[in-house]
Amino acid sequence: MNGDPIKSFGLVIKEIRKSQGLSQESLATEANLDRAFISQVENGHKQPSLLTIFRLADALKLSVSELLKQVEAVLAGN
Amino acid sequence: MNGDPIKSFGLVIKEIRKSQGLSQESLATEANLDRAFISQVENGHKQPSLLTIFRLADALKLSVSELLKQVEAVLAGN
Repeated sequence: MNGDPIKSFGLVIKEIRKSQGLSQESLATEANLDRAFISQVENGHKQPSLLTIFRLADALKLSVSELLKQVEAVLAGN
Repeated sequence: MNGDPIKSFGLVIKEIRKSQGLSQESLATEANLDRAFISQVENGHKQPSLLTIFRLADALKLSVSELLKQVEAVLAGN
């Protein structure tokens, strides 16, 4: 496993959130998570659990496998 | 989100591990995780973090997105 999955996951969440015009606050509300936690995940300072990954994918309206595919693409440097 | 992602994830890990003829012990060694933890994940009693998901996928020689796609299939009742 190369690269940092936690950092890559954070980058992808931030990118998708912004592409959907969502604030951290509105994503936090949608995913029933804490805004500060969203910020820490996006900055690669906190890693999500399986359930949190599902909640974020749900809130961003994409499948978990699609979300992780984008993380894998970042890790692969694409 | 319907169904229980944690239980479904455990079922999928167990199924793939067995289909590859691996014991919990050998998967734990390959993924650099504790055997008891593998057992708890497979039984849906513990949920993995993002990094653990990557380690398990690596050890089972499939992509994280493919692993999560199988979890989503179980959740969808397919």
